[in-house]
Amino acid sequence: MTPRAGVGRVVWYRGTTDLGDPPDPTTVDPEEELAVFESAQEAAHEELERERERTRDRLGEDEAEIFDAHRAFLDDPEITGGIEAAIENGLPAPHAIRRAFEDPIARFENLEGSMAERADDLRDVRDRLLRLVTDGDRTDLGDLPNGSILVAERLTPSDTAQLDPDVLAGFATIFGGRTSHAAIFARSLGIPAVVGVGDELAQVGDGRELLVDGEDGTVVIDPDDDARSRISDAEASVVAEHVSTADGREIEVAANVGTLAELDAAAEQGADGIGLFRTEFLFLDRDAPPDEQEQYEAYTAALTAFPGERVVVRTLDVGGDKPIPYLDAHAEENPFLGVRGIRRSLASDSNLFDTQLRALLRAAGDDEDADGSLAVMFPLVATVEELDAALSRVESVAEELAAEGIDYAIPELGVMIETPGSVFAAEALAKRVSFLSIGTNDLTQYVMAASRENDRTADLHDPLYPAVLRAIRRTVTAGHDGDAWVGMCGEMAGDPDLTELLVGLGLDELSMSAITVPDVKANVREVDADDAREHAERILDAETRAEVRRLLSAESSA
Amino acid sequence: MTPRAGVGRVVWYRGTTDLGDPPDPTTVDPEEELAVFESAQEAAHEELERERERTRDRLGEDEAEIFDAHRAFLDDPEITGGIEAAIENGLPAPHAIRRAFEDPIARFENLEGSMAERADDLRDVRDRLLRLVTDGDRTDLGDLPNGSILVAERLTPSDTAQLDPDVLAGFATIFGGRTSHAAIFARSLGIPAVVGVGDELAQVGDGRELLVDGEDGTVVIDPDDDARSRISDAEASVVAEHVSTADGREIEVAANVGTLAELDAAAEQGADGIGLFRTEFLFLDRDAPPDEQEQYEAYTAALTAFPGERVVVRTLDVGGDKPIPYLDAHAEENPFLGVRGIRRSLASDSNLFDTQLRALLRAAGDDEDADGSLAVMFPLVATVEELDAALSRVESVAEELAAEGIDYAIPELGVMIETPGSVFAAEALAKRVSFLSIGTNDLTQYVMAASRENDRTADLHDPLYPAVLRAIRRTVTAGHDGDAWVGMCGEMAGDPDLTELLVGLGLDELSMSAITVPDVKANVREVDADDAREHAERILDAETRAEVRRLLSAESSA
Repeated sequence: MTPRAGVGRVVWYRGTTDLGDPPDPTTVDPEEELAVFESAQEAAHEELERERERTRDRLGEDEAEIFDAHRAFLDDPEITGGIEAAIENGLPAPHAIRRAFEDPIARFENLEGSMAERADDLRDVRDRLLRLVTDGDRTDLGDLPNGSILVAERLTPSDTAQLDPDVLAGFATIFGGRTSHAAIFARSLGIPAVVGVGDELAQVGDGRELLVDGEDGTVVIDPDDDARSRISDAEASVVAEHVSTADGREIEVAANVGTLAELDAAAEQGADGIGLFRTEFLFLDRDAPPDEQEQYEAYTAALTAFPGERVVVRTLDVGGDKPIPYLDAHAEENPFLGVRGIRRSLASDSNLFDTQLRALLRAAGDDEDADGSLAVMFPLVATVEELDAALSRVESVAEELAAEGIDYAIPELGVMIETPGSVFAAEALAKRVSFLSIGTNDLTQYVMAASRENDRTADLHDPLYPAVLRAIRRTVTAGHDGDAWVGMCGEMAGDPDLTELLVGLGLDELSMSAITVPDVKANVREVDADDAREHAERILDAETRAEVRRLLSAESSA
Repeated sequence: MTPRAGVGRVVWYRGTTDLGDPPDPTTVDPEEELAVFESAQEAAHEELERERERTRDRLGEDEAEIFDAHRAFLDDPEITGGIEAAIENGLPAPHAIRRAFEDPIARFENLEGSMAERADDLRDVRDRLLRLVTDGDRTDLGDLPNGSILVAERLTPSDTAQLDPDVLAGFATIFGGRTSHAAIFARSLGIPAVVGVGDELAQVGDGRELLVDGEDGTVVIDPDDDARSRISDAEASVVAEHVSTADGREIEVAANVGTLAELDAAAEQGADGIGLFRTEFLFLDRDAPPDEQEQYEAYTAALTAFPGERVVVRTLDVGGDKPIPYLDAHAEENPFLGVRGIRRSLASDSNLFDTQLRALLRAAGDDEDADGSLAVMFPLVATVEELDAALSRVESVAEELAAEGIDYAIPELGVMIETPGSVFAAEALAKRVSFLSIGTNDLTQYVMAASRENDRTADLHDPLYPAVLRAIRRTVTAGHDGDAWVGMCGEMAGDPDLTELLVGLGLDELSMSAITVPDVKANVREVDADDAREHAERILDAETRAEVRRLLSAESSA
């Protein structure tokens, strides 16, 4: 099932508490109210910690990080100072909280883009405190009737993290944008959702039937059979088998996963295997690194989830931008240009890298026919020297295991192509390994010299600029010349609108969020690989992104 | 004159003050000593500010920044706290200062690479304080006998910044490395120097004759005529005219300058013009941007200094890494991947960019036959869209000037190739402008995804990796296909050992620190362009940097 659309009965969710006017200040005991606020603040920290963990387990570390921002707001001196001052001035804790958040929320609301969404985060923190100081129970969003469509003014990250995709048919909100946390979480959880429907949604009462079409971004009240059937026609159904283009070229469509919990979802969506198994989750939020056995078990679990298929594990990819307390991270002025990925693994004087390689080689050596086959790739390689160093570490770990009499095998080995250096060195890299896997997020960032986390350079961070497409094309050509297969595991791979282009650029494998696997598989089947190649060549000749887009849409209408 | 070697009479410089043992603590008045220290601290700040300004004027902003580090050390709580505590414990200010610096200096000394050189910076700060608290006069390094060779244990940045290249024949120190500030300042100032000679230097008394060969890194005591003549034979003499390879291909050898003061030095070294005129100096260290007239005068001064030659002005290149108080800089997590260069100019809603373009077009319009011809290039272009936007700003400024009846001309226009994006878009960029100029420092940083300011990624920041050479080759080929000439203005261009390679890669122009112009001109004349091209092709096929180096040295011995 893809999460594009769902139909169900509306359940309204009203998150905020109506406080009414403040009482007479003389009736308020500031000390008591201060104590009320402080214990609410403490309770909020505890809740946030639990929700952070839950979100990390369900959605991964990146999604969980929003809760760190909430915890920071909870301790922000402007806000806490404002609450304390308002209490001193005679307001009870709830009213003081409401007032202290007014200015910060207004300031963020006036900003553009992702900064405006911080206003939602502030509201979330405010409402959490309000609920805690007023003893208000929260609607248990994890316990809704089966097939419900949840409807709300807005959903906070905390709200969204509670939703259960097995129960909920979808949700819709009055406010919020495509990049809000609610929208992002919905995609990750596989829940059909339309965020920011507008005021019309306020008219839809509890119990009404509502169709939520996350693909079109529309809702239909009391949908007729026609509307329902249009939706079900448009749904791509899960395709379990491997797919080929209309003219018979097989394209592997795999999934990216960042936790063990995501393995099942990937299998359910019909992924041909795992194209990117991130291993950071094993190392985060703990005081010491996982030992060899723990890692071995995690890699084995991934192989068991995909019998007969390939599982590509990326070695630990951390650095100044993702510090881990027990690793020797250094503060860096430009962490994205610092000691990340393979640099970190090779630079470390701890045996972290060797331990990971030992666990991987042991997992590869398990002789269970029913399991998948393991592949290992190295992140952020920029030079042939780095790859050679990593390969010699694999060799020496293999010798070690042999000497110890432990079963092992050398897995299929590959290199992530994420730096322009690796693009320009792709021939020599491909000669040394079985595959290259293009990480479009980092590659785009470095090709354009534009941080993928900076709103002010966001427009440059787009793989549809001709320069990025040419870097991809160069990688594929050099990879094939070196007898390596070439995959892609960045966000670009999961965009169903780009499937024909990527097939045309010659990619052998596409790996993506599980949720888009059915759509991409459906699109692969419709592509004619020869036509796609010719069309891609025309697109590669484009001088501007606008021209690329024009050519792309010309194709879809053709 | 190139600064490779010099002969002269030794003048010893002993910077540190001998304090002797501390007196009986009971004779010390802590309050008085504290006041002594505090007034020395204040005086040190004033001195550092003056020396910073002087260094900036003579050597440029990058070199001056070391004084900011000194000012930070001067206020470091560990150090000031240590001094205060030692005074409380009964030490007089000088001894307290000496003790408080011991640990921090020892810690830095135990580190590797450039961090170890911070120990020198700490010594510099310590000795400055010691001189100020003991009323010790500093030897006036700006007033040495003509033709002196200065000899010292070590020279601090403050010492070096006082040296006068017109007076000094050279200097030599016992301690210090190639990348120490003393060594770097020496190169910038054009003073022959050997830094880190070792203990043997301690034996050389005042007044002895010493030959300092900065090229070989050797000193000769009491050099005989033979030694002197070997030196003078090896000196490349200034070549005023343009040079061609042995088989007649003209290569323009130009200079990079960052201040008006450097224009004369560039002309004296025989530069064919200016390949990179940095305009940041006009904008730094002031409260408001320079107006159109001030800029016009600066650009005109550059043209006047190079009659009949080309002067390439780079438009303002600032960003999160080089913030300017009156510009709307934002703190960025990764400033090198942020709003820099042309992004900054195009994003600004101030008329900073238009004002600079107006001044440039007016300077280009001056109809003085005796002047050089102006060219303008845009930094950090990553997309064709950005170039198109910049070109349309040039057009609209031209229309504005025409409407106002002001004389102007459209200068020769070009693009700096510093991002991989611009390398992959070089065909379309070249079609739109007259020239491309490769900035190897930034280009290497982005190709390798390795900050050029991070010691821990320093090894990756090397243009001799095959990937960087291929990016350069791609740029040259695409540039020539688009009828643009292609230059290089990064550090690589000024390395005389790479002249043959760069000619072989097809570059038409090389622009560098003025000081290396004579050497590079001499090397250009010895190159056979066809042989160089064939050799470059072999080097481009190398898989590793080690192989590149091997092939490069094979060439020099051939």
